[in-house]
Amino acid sequence: MAILVVGSVAFDSIETPHGAVDHCLGGAATHFSLAASYFTDVRVIAVVGKDFTAEHEAVLTRRGVDTCGIERANGLSFHWTGSYSGNLDEAKTLGTDLNVFETFEPKIPAAYTDSEYLFLANIDPVLQARVRSQMPKVRMVCGDTMNYWIADHGANLAKVLSDLDTLLINDGEVRMLAGERNLVLAAEKVLAMGPKTLVVKHGEYGATAFFSDRSFGGDTKICRPFRAPALPLAEVVDPTGAGDSFAGGFYGYLASQPVLTPAVFRTAMFYGGVMGSFAVERFGTERLQNVTRQEIDERFKLFQEISHLDYTGA
Amino acid sequence: MAILVVGSVAFDSIETPHGAVDHCLGGAATHFSLAASYFTDVRVIAVVGKDFTAEHEAVLTRRGVDTCGIERANGLSFHWTGSYSGNLDEAKTLGTDLNVFETFEPKIPAAYTDSEYLFLANIDPVLQARVRSQMPKVRMVCGDTMNYWIADHGANLAKVLSDLDTLLINDGEVRMLAGERNLVLAAEKVLAMGPKTLVVKHGEYGATAFFSDRSFGGDTKICRPFRAPALPLAEVVDPTGAGDSFAGGFYGYLASQPVLTPAVFRTAMFYGGVMGSFAVERFGTERLQNVTRQEIDERFKLFQEISHLDYTGA
Repeated sequence: MAILVVGSVAFDSIETPHGAVDHCLGGAATHFSLAASYFTDVRVIAVVGKDFTAEHEAVLTRRGVDTCGIERANGLSFHWTGSYSGNLDEAKTLGTDLNVFETFEPKIPAAYTDSEYLFLANIDPVLQARVRSQMPKVRMVCGDTMNYWIADHGANLAKVLSDLDTLLINDGEVRMLAGERNLVLAAEKVLAMGPKTLVVKHGEYGATAFFSDRSFGGDTKICRPFRAPALPLAEVVDPTGAGDSFAGGFYGYLASQPVLTPAVFRTAMFYGGVMGSFAVERFGTERLQNVTRQEIDERFKLFQEISHLDYTGA
Repeated sequence: MAILVVGSVAFDSIETPHGAVDHCLGGAATHFSLAASYFTDVRVIAVVGKDFTAEHEAVLTRRGVDTCGIERANGLSFHWTGSYSGNLDEAKTLGTDLNVFETFEPKIPAAYTDSEYLFLANIDPVLQARVRSQMPKVRMVCGDTMNYWIADHGANLAKVLSDLDTLLINDGEVRMLAGERNLVLAAEKVLAMGPKTLVVKHGEYGATAFFSDRSFGGDTKICRPFRAPALPLAEVVDPTGAGDSFAGGFYGYLASQPVLTPAVFRTAMFYGGVMGSFAVERFGTERLQNVTRQEIDERFKLFQEISHLDYTGA
């Protein structure tokens, strides 16, 4: 079933120990869409400038992503400049040019209104809430955010959180949002803010899902947390978009399944890790454009092999 | 089969956000022995002072640990003072009084010489090597070390590493030892120093084993890394000894099995996490003294439940 994603389609200028790229296609909605496109239909709501060419659009459309919700505005596209050093575990932002994103008013094309899954990528929670309110009938809403919105836009973010099925954020963000250093206690506090389920991304250490008694609808049995591994990688070329690619693999798989069960959720966590592990192998979206379904399936098995006691190579 | 462990039996004075204890029984060999005692016979080589009473010794002997290799010296036992704050992820050492450990000359009782498994807990690599050389016929040697020895005693440590079956250290230590930030590349460098297998402890994120083509004897097939989870805990009372307890659960299980296979190694990683998760629930050795085999088995299942896609509660 189709996912509607709202978020940034942007250009990134990135420097890592493996090289540098200037103005390569990026943005949370881009990474998310490409990763999710291997599992289900994806529709994008975003705004771009005149620098977004047919060639850039083709990166998405070649993967079957519906781009009719990408608005063209006068001006330049959102542009992020950043660098990574050492273990590539933290980005240093050198510049954030919002450009056309500064006055973005998301509009939902009529053809998108039957989307059953909504993903609110990391943008201003005011915009997240606006899109959410225009999609009252979706089956599931999943969202992301970041330290900037947590620190200075708490009231707006609280409204978004109050109505989320799943929140996907990283360790630092969940601790900051909860004001609590212990991950389990922080997760409890965040779940009390609204999300039925919380997925915490740990970068190279994988991810943990924390469930509430609302996670699986009528089944009020509280699930144990679930830990999905990350693949130990000898070479991380560019970590930009790894979290969005995790979200795309995770949510794409969820949306491809008829019913949300604990088993489906766990499998989705693994697919999230799989897509994140591909994303970082090349700069920008290069790897996510060209991965094959067979490679995805093989890596999924590899994730089982590296984490399951009884893996027999089946 | 019996494990011989050489390391510190000591007293710890610890402060954490959950309270403080003064001169509680601790030391790497103590935590290791108690954790391993649930799986196999354990014999200890250490030195203590006059402050080590029959009551302290009974903590070990009640768990069947053989203490005849614990030498009594004039003076006070090794004493560590430390504190934890925030997320309890790093200890701040406030004092290290080596006391009787300063002149420790490990002697191996005749009754210990048939031990088939040797664990070199975190002590001076000169002492580790001395014990190793007196146990030429052991079936397996596993060891630990720390930043202090890596930084300033590299040549002595290199000799110990050259002859290890498995090295168990934490993230920071493996990166420091290899001079490499990427975990996979660091692991390759460390394996090239001698250990057949490397287990990297990630604290609250679990542990990863890296294998070489020497890990499983004749079978030269290189194994994928293996990631074992840690249990998300709402309350960490005292993390002191968590790594040693991991080592004890890990090595105790290995020594209890007739043959070392990849499946046995993986299971041992899970038991390591299980024993580490118990250790931190109370100050000092309190929890490891009183855990039951049933609790261990239940927690082992819980570790599967939180990490396996197909867990069905079997």
